[in-house]
Formats: sequence, structure tokens, C-alpha cells
Amino acid sequence: MTTSTISLRDIRSFHVSGRTVKLSGQPTQTVKVSPDSAPRTVDLNGHYVTGQLYAQHFMLETPQTDIPVLFWHGGAMTGVTWETTPDGRPGWSQLFLRQGHDVVISDAVERGRSSWSPYPQIYDSAPLFRTAEDAWYLFRMGTAEGFSENPVLRSPFPGQRFPTGQFDQLCAQFVPRWTTNAVASVAAYAELVSQFDKVIIVAHSQGGWFAQSVAARMSDRIAAVVMLEPAGAPEMTPEQMAASARVPHLYVWGDNCDDHPAWKPYKQDALAHSEQLQSLGGVADHMDLPKLGITGNSHMPMMDDNSDDIAGMVQDWLHTALTLRNED
Amino acid sequence: MTTSTISLRDIRSFHVSGRTVKLSGQPTQTVKVSPDSAPRTVDLNGHYVTGQLYAQHFMLETPQTDIPVLFWHGGAMTGVTWETTPDGRPGWSQLFLRQGHDVVISDAVERGRSSWSPYPQIYDSAPLFRTAEDAWYLFRMGTAEGFSENPVLRSPFPGQRFPTGQFDQLCAQFVPRWTTNAVASVAAYAELVSQFDKVIIVAHSQGGWFAQSVAARMSDRIAAVVMLEPAGAPEMTPEQMAASARVPHLYVWGDNCDDHPAWKPYKQDALAHSEQLQSLGGVADHMDLPKLGITGNSHMPMMDDNSDDIAGMVQDWLHTALTLRNED
Repeated sequence: MTTSTISLRDIRSFHVSGRTVKLSGQPTQTVKVSPDSAPRTVDLNGHYVTGQLYAQHFMLETPQTDIPVLFWHGGAMTGVTWETTPDGRPGWSQLFLRQGHDVVISDAVERGRSSWSPYPQIYDSAPLFRTAEDAWYLFRMGTAEGFSENPVLRSPFPGQRFPTGQFDQLCAQFVPRWTTNAVASVAAYAELVSQFDKVIIVAHSQGGWFAQSVAARMSDRIAAVVMLEPAGAPEMTPEQMAASARVPHLYVWGDNCDDHPAWKPYKQDALAHSEQLQSLGGVADHMDLPKLGITGNSHMPMMDDNSDDIAGMVQDWLHTALTLRNED
Repeated sequence: MTTSTISLRDIRSFHVSGRTVKLSGQPTQTVKVSPDSAPRTVDLNGHYVTGQLYAQHFMLETPQTDIPVLFWHGGAMTGVTWETTPDGRPGWSQLFLRQGHDVVISDAVERGRSSWSPYPQIYDSAPLFRTAEDAWYLFRMGTAEGFSENPVLRSPFPGQRFPTGQFDQLCAQFVPRWTTNAVASVAAYAELVSQFDKVIIVAHSQGGWFAQSVAARMSDRIAAVVMLEPAGAPEMTPEQMAASARVPHLYVWGDNCDDHPAWKPYKQDALAHSEQLQSLGGVADHMDLPKLGITGNSHMPMMDDNSDDIAGMVQDWLHTALTLRNED
């Protein structure tokens, strides 16, 4: 499956959303743009685009469905999450392309090719940087004590499915993030969705929070939301909850969540939210991998050694969910 | 030509280069990662990967040559430069794919998906942000006075070929840059080149400076360097100059360079450098578009309304240069 040709009619990239802001009162700077070139004056006063979101749309020659899959990454990451795995296997974007879905990879506002803005002048806060130590523990590679500066001395959880030998390649993917741009991020994702008649959103971690927020606002355009370990659930009005319940939701959970100080509350939030969706007649399914006998998955199931299998399970769920929805 | 199918054997992305550094003495922070989720402690002390470079390799099912084209963008930009033009036409990456070249799009160190590092802790300086005003003048959309906050009041140069109606879409592509990372950038680009037996580099602006630097160090692996308005030429030792002269160089220049305070010296530097290459028996050709009767091009010929034509001229030059080189 993964070695077949990907025949594309087009690859189109663009930025959506964003607004122009003006900065004034900044001191003029003199810089050399290249080490051996003449210095030139740089005036930072002026106009900037802020809040824009970068997306890349891969359009198949003969898609099997007219509903593209929008991949939304998690905190401190970019669309690279979905491309190639850290150990060089095809990422989910390729798996879904090869299954006949058009795919759209995007970078969240403030990250990667979406760019970021000066703080405190435009953004309200300073960025946060993700350390290797933080990722090792938060992404559940192993215990905090299992991390070592020396890659060969690291002790992952027994049966760990993440390719921990390539953990530093994962760390190379990290980008700074802010915690004060949620409104702009949701607006930009909503504008991305509005580019299409109907979409499937596949979201990871913090991206799952954005996906739920947008699904509540644009339920008519969203055929399904698949979340790999969403970082909790947004607070919603009864109206938003009712709209959300019209969108089938799938939650996928890896191993070692239930006694983790960050993941236990996120998962509890998500479970409570999904029960509310169900009580309103919505489809809100959980694929709790250890309960299905699939152990060893990290916070990054799209990169783990069984990433192809999990993609297949998600595709099967999507097939059923979309068929049921069409029969409504 | 531009509507044919792109049949890919694979799309592979990865980060090259970079090193791990340790940060200590930073205060612990408590943050909410999502607005409605429980706060958690973030410890910024620890290990970071810095200096890495992101690249995405599009591999054709049946390439017409085994030499991929590496596209290197300019200052304050990312690989998006080469994708879709601001007014939605196919960028050079697509034109070259459709001409049978494998292509590699990358983001320079510190930009886009290559990420950036805390300053002053890891980077030595603060970032520079590009304003719309700066870009309007530096990219030669018009005179400085021709810029207006209001898009409909802007006055481009007469005959301007850049789609200035979409100038704000170009501004959305800008990312901050530093002026103190040249060593890490050249190292990362060299490591990118080392992933391939032989490459063609197509570089824009500051990327041209990097391309010349890498060509001087790795002339055996570089079949040709094409530069769209390079931001000057690197200083070189006689040995580096001799190595550079073994690599065919093409320089492409747009309109309104010769009386521009930034572009006049950059172009003079480049001309002087190319004359040295020629004096050593090297191929160093200039495609000075206004002298060829092609007027109105901006600093962004890969986005101007004749971007397809210029790509074709570059492809013709490459064909000749590579044929001549093979006959050596």
C-alpha cells in the first residue's frame, strides 16, 4: 500500500486569516543581512500581517472522496508531525493520500510557516520552548528519570512503540509556542475550514482542542473529527454542544495515560465531554488502544511503530461514521 | 504544461544538521496550554536541538534526470517562496516537478519549520521582523512613497510584474530572521547537499549567498547554482574561488536594480565575483532581464506574472550548462 504512486493534480499552498497591524516607536537598526555585505538600515516601524495560517493542499488526480482530510498538529509542533515519521516511514499524510483522500497540512498560527509576531508589541506574552526533557515525559516516552542527555542511556517504557532511537529527530521538529493566541488560532482554523465545502479534521493533542472548538462553530462543514489524544475539551455553550453533537467524534488514546499527571485530567475532560455529546445523540467513540489490547503507544501514535495500523483503524471508523451520517 | 499530473513515488521530509545544547538557570513557569485546561508547570531548563534545517523532498515516479533541484529561499522568508505564487499560480517547485526534476524545498535555519532558539540564551541576537514598507521598497514593488497602508492606494512601478494586488499575501509569508546564524546556516545547507550525490541549487536573494558559500565548499556535488538576485557574494579564499569556478553559476536580475541603494551594491558585488569566476575559466552567466528586453520584474521573479517564462529560460540555461559540463 505505502509504495504506490501518488498522482497529484495539483499542490497548492496559501495563507489564510490574519490581519494587518501597525507598529510604531521602535528604534531603527543597522544590520548586515549577509556577513560580507554592506550594512543597511532596518526600520521596524510599520505594518505587519499577524495571525495568518499556512496550509498546503495536496490534490489527487482521482480522489476516492470529495472530502479532504485536514491535519492539525499539536502544541510546539508544525505540520511536519504528519509527514515522515522520525525514523523515516511514511507519515499519516501519505497514508491518507494513498488511501484516496486529498490532504491539507497546516502550521498553527505562530508556528512554522505561519510565522510569529513581535512580543510584547503584538503578541501579549513571551514564547515557551519545549525541552527534550519535557517532551520525553509529556509525550510518554518513559518516566522523567528515564531521560538522559546521552541518547544511548535513555530508558523508555518497556514495550515503547515510539522510535526512541530517533527521539532527537522528533525534538528537531519542535517550535516555540505561545499560550495567548487561542482566539486568533481558532479564527484562522475556521477560515481554513471555510475554504472547503466539507472536511474531515484529524488533530493531535492541542490541535484537538482547536478541532473541537471549530466543530462547535461550523458543524455543517465538518464531516468528522478524529483526535489523537486531545489536550482536554473546550468549554461550550449548550448551543455549541448541540452543534458539536451533529459531528461524529473519535478519540484515540495511547498507553500510560491514566496515571500521568497531565494526561489523566485531559483524558477525564475529554471523556466527560464525549459523554455529553452521546447524551445529545451524538457519535463520540473512544479508541482506547490498551483496552483494545494494543499496548506501548506514546502520545504520538502517528509516529509509533504501529502508525500504519492505527491509521487503518481510523480510516475504518471514518468509513463507518460517514456512511452512517449519509444515511441520516 | 502546468496542468499535467505530478506522479510521485514518495514525499519525504526530515531535519538535518543541528546540535543539542543545554539551558540552565531559567525560571519555572506555570501555563495553561489550552484556555480551558488545567495549568501545568513548564521547566525551560533542559536540552534543545538548535541549528536544524527542515527539508521536503518530492520524488517523481519517473524523473527526467537524477539530479534534484534544491530550492533555497531568501531572507525573512521560507520554502513557501517556491510553492504557489501569491496570486495562486503554480510556483517554481511545481514547474520544475512538471519538467521532470525531483525537487527539495527547505526552510533556512531559524525560519519556518526549521524552528528557532531562545535568545540571548542560545542565539546571540534578537530577531528582525520585515515590515510591509521594507518589503515594498526592498523587493522593488515601487518607490518608498508608493506604499500605502490601504492596498488600493499603493502605487507600484509602471509595468510592475509582481501581482501587487496580492502583496499582503506575500507579507503573510514573512518570518523573523537573525543576522548572527550564518555559520550554522551554511553548515546545515552543506549537510542538506550531502544527502544527495549531485544537486542543482536554485536560490533567491540571501539564499544565493548561502548557495555560493556551499558551492565553494562542495563543488563536486553541485552541478549548477542558479541565483535570483543574490544578496551579494561571500568573501572567498583563492582555493574556494577555484572550487567555485568548477560550478556553473547563473545570475538572474530583475528591473530597477541599478539605482537602488541596496541592490546596486549587491549586484556590483555579484558582478565582480562572477568576473573572477570567469577569469578562472568558470561559467558565470548573467540573465539581466531588462537588458534582454524583459522589463518590470521585481525582486521576486518566481512570483512575477512572467514566472513561467523565466523558469523556462533558467531550465534552458541549465540544460546547456549541464550538457557542457558533462562534455568536459
